[in-house]
Amino acid sequence: MNELLQKPRKVYVSRTIEFNAAHRLFNPIWSDVENVGVYGKCSNKYGHGHNYLLEITICGVVDRNTGFLFDLKELKGILEEEITARFDHRHLNHDVPELQDCVPTTEVLAVLIWDILEKRLLAINNREITLHEVKLYETGKNAVRYLGE
Amino acid sequence: MNELLQKPRKVYVSRTIEFNAAHRLFNPIWSDVENVGVYGKCSNKYGHGHNYLLEITICGVVDRNTGFLFDLKELKGILEEEITARFDHRHLNHDVPELQDCVPTTEVLAVLIWDILEKRLLAINNREITLHEVKLYETGKNAVRYLGE
Amino acid sequence: MNELLQKPRKVYVSRTIEFNAAHRLFNPIWSDVENVGVYGKCSNKYGHGHNYLLEITICGVVDRNTGFLFDLKELKGILEEEITARFDHRHLNHDVPELQDCVPTTEVLAVLIWDILEKRLLAINNREITLHEVKLYETGKNAVRYLGE
Amino acid sequence: MNELLQKPRKVYVSRTIEFNAAHRLFNPIWSDVENVGVYGKCSNKYGHGHNYLLEITICGVVDRNTGFLFDLKELKGILEEEITARFDHRHLNHDVPELQDCVPTTEVLAVLIWDILEKRLLAINNREITLHEVKLYETGKNAVRYLGE
Amino acid sequence: MNELLQKPRKVYVSRTIEFNAAHRLFNPIWSDVENVGVYGKCSNKYGHGHNYLLEITICGVVDRNTGFLFDLKELKGILEEEITARFDHRHLNHDVPELQDCVPTTEVLAVLIWDILEKRLLAINNREITLHEVKLYETGKNAVRYLGE
Amino acid sequence: MNELLQKPRKVYVSRTIEFNAAHRLFNPIWSDVENVGVYGKCSNKYGHGHNYLLEITICGVVDRNTGFLFDLKELKGILEEEITARFDHRHLNHDVPELQDCVPTTEVLAVLIWDILEKRLLAINNREITLHEVKLYETGKNAVRYLGE
Repeated sequence: MNELLQKPRKVYVSRTIEFNAAHRLFNPIWSDVENVGVYGKCSNKYGHGHNYLLEITICGVVDRNTGFLFDLKELKGILEEEITARFDHRHLNHDVPELQDCVPTTEVLAVLIWDILEKRLLAINNREITLHEVKLYETGKNAVRYLGE
Repeated sequence: MNELLQKPRKVYVSRTIEFNAAHRLFNPIWSDVENVGVYGKCSNKYGHGHNYLLEITICGVVDRNTGFLFDLKELKGILEEEITARFDHRHLNHDVPELQDCVPTTEVLAVLIWDILEKRLLAINNREITLHEVKLYETGKNAVRYLGE
Repeated sequence: MNELLQKPRKVYVSRTIEFNAAHRLFNPIWSDVENVGVYGKCSNKYGHGHNYLLEITICGVVDRNTGFLFDLKELKGILEEEITARFDHRHLNHDVPELQDCVPTTEVLAVLIWDILEKRLLAINNREITLHEVKLYETGKNAVRYLGE
Repeated sequence: MNELLQKPRKVYVSRTIEFNAAHRLFNPIWSDVENVGVYGKCSNKYGHGHNYLLEITICGVVDRNTGFLFDLKELKGILEEEITARFDHRHLNHDVPELQDCVPTTEVLAVLIWDILEKRLLAINNREITLHEVKLYETGKNAVRYLGE
Repeated sequence: MNELLQKPRKVYVSRTIEFNAAHRLFNPIWSDVENVGVYGKCSNKYGHGHNYLLEITICGVVDRNTGFLFDLKELKGILEEEITARFDHRHLNHDVPELQDCVPTTEVLAVLIWDILEKRLLAINNREITLHEVKLYETGKNAVRYLGE
Repeated sequence: MNELLQKPRKVYVSRTIEFNAAHRLFNPIWSDVENVGVYGKCSNKYGHGHNYLLEITICGVVDRNTGFLFDLKELKGILEEEITARFDHRHLNHDVPELQDCVPTTEVLAVLIWDILEKRLLAINNREITLHEVKLYETGKNAVRYLGE
């Protein structure tokens, strides 16, 4: 089976999920006025929110038996446990321990998601599958990509 | 000019804007447990958030001189003053006085936006232009339409 | 609570889901040549497929206590049982008993979905909630709406 | 065949196409200054342009033999002849005779498309199929609907 | 002409097309139970289907006379012949000879499309244009990229 | 603050804007017939138009104090001045001096936008922020990326 996979084929597989969260951009080392200067209305006291769209990309060689890079059901389970359970319907400043000492910008959130998923994939990995990219859209107009560099 | 407008033509013009807000579904007449029963994770204490997409539709007869139903620059100004300034980058439960005695569901928010815009359009209206529909998307999957009924 | 709901407000609530199915347009009362004449490549023997996008709209008066038209968790459960379990990852000609005597065009499928959901909503309904519209996108370019007329 | 169509079912079928055109909003009965006052940068001398998205909706009773409202191949041919050939890759002010005495706003264009398609459908119509709606998006944010009223 | 192209400019040009196909994930070296274990409902007997979205990216230096990387009309013709004619409105397991010894996962399909287009582009190529990437979306949530590695 | 930024994190931040412009593909060194041969209907005399979608990507190390790569308000201002003011609601062949000696293909336009933004970012840059990619969509189906190579 899978004649096309006689030679190794390195592919990039992306999975997109959404989570709905509130956040406030505020750095406690600065005064309120300084925070408004840096973050504008994003520093409003009670926060605002977004439908975050997260695209995870993993890469590696396609398995010759399954024709898959990775079992999508397993990937969905991982994203459910690590991302949805942690961030969905949360206020990022109050409800996410990993962000306690951070300003939850899209950049910082993308980096955190990378760190969480890289560790998790390493733990379960018995093949040559690696996390390639985390792309996080805050809105349809703004996105941050992090590749572990 | 505008031969095609020799007879009256009734059109529906839609304008879509986005605002980013946090909210919490919580009714103080109920206990926390009852609120979780009704609203689930939407009742989490600090709230969560959305990129709300709002489509406003007005209707009336096209003006024979301009070929417009309504001056789009004026409509943009109205939406900026009435919607963006009121809801964007806000926590709906804390920052919007009109919602103080309400649970800010998408249904309630659509009704409030109708009431605000209908009053405003009546105040400025010197022609037969009426608010036809408020459509509010909480996510790409959920939307509420209100037509003033 | 919910000052805005002192007077009854009739809203339309839409929920969108996706299902992935195969189908073949073929009417056994006609010859193969006649079927190709009517359905073209849509009558290819083994079928082809689509990511069907289904938008269900229900309408009624907003509940003054919850601020909801209908419990979204309950609606999601109904759609899971009635639509996803029946159509998702199925070949419509082979796997759906209700379509055995039908050519599974988008029109026919929209009508069937209406009949299924209308019956289900009537069975559970203890308030004035009615099915308003079934809108089914076969592709981003083609859609059929059915309103029970 | 088509058990579900034993009773008449009235459906609304939509087809979406795109055309790319230039236009200038300018009314020759006014001075340049007056035109800028009404149309702003939309009155710039050489025009600007859009990827217009056009959604045509027809309605009627589903045919019991085919399961179709209307042959989609025929509808595609009509839209190709009447819309694409007339508007695509054109400058609406210079290249479209029907718009010579009009300011080509989205409102006017939607009305013209209605008039063209209604006449064409009447000419070919041997069943109870009617044009229901023309919806024209100038951008993702602005749209005009015309229903022949 | 084309002052900006006095120095060579390497660009990446993408073209997106859609095809509608059915497929079944099933490996005949395994039992039905094993197939369900690996592929779940994707191994249902008669298959299901998708609106596949395919984004092809080619790269090379912009031509100083035309301002194009490649004649888009020619690229459209190639994609029509090699992709649409082969996959659109087909059942991938039954109708595509190149997939006879394969499980038609998105990964395998992306690899096949690369092999087909790379060979075709080499055959016609008289300039330094190379296939850069094949990106295939099975749904809006799942995509596979292959870059020939 | 910003524990996650103790080590340098290189991110890619994208911002998407839209501008509406007309253009004509025509090279004066060729006859009209030759232009039609190369550009087809894109060489129609008065031009046509598009809703251009432009995605700008910058990259660099996240600032440990702000959690930002770059102040988004500042980036928005730059894009307003350099892109919107120059291209929006313009006819690219007539209104943009930088394109006077060019055929305004999407390729050429992407290269010009790169040159403009690279110069501007160098002028204001006091940190290690670089322009990474210009991606310009002429329609939803056609896009050009330029990375400064």
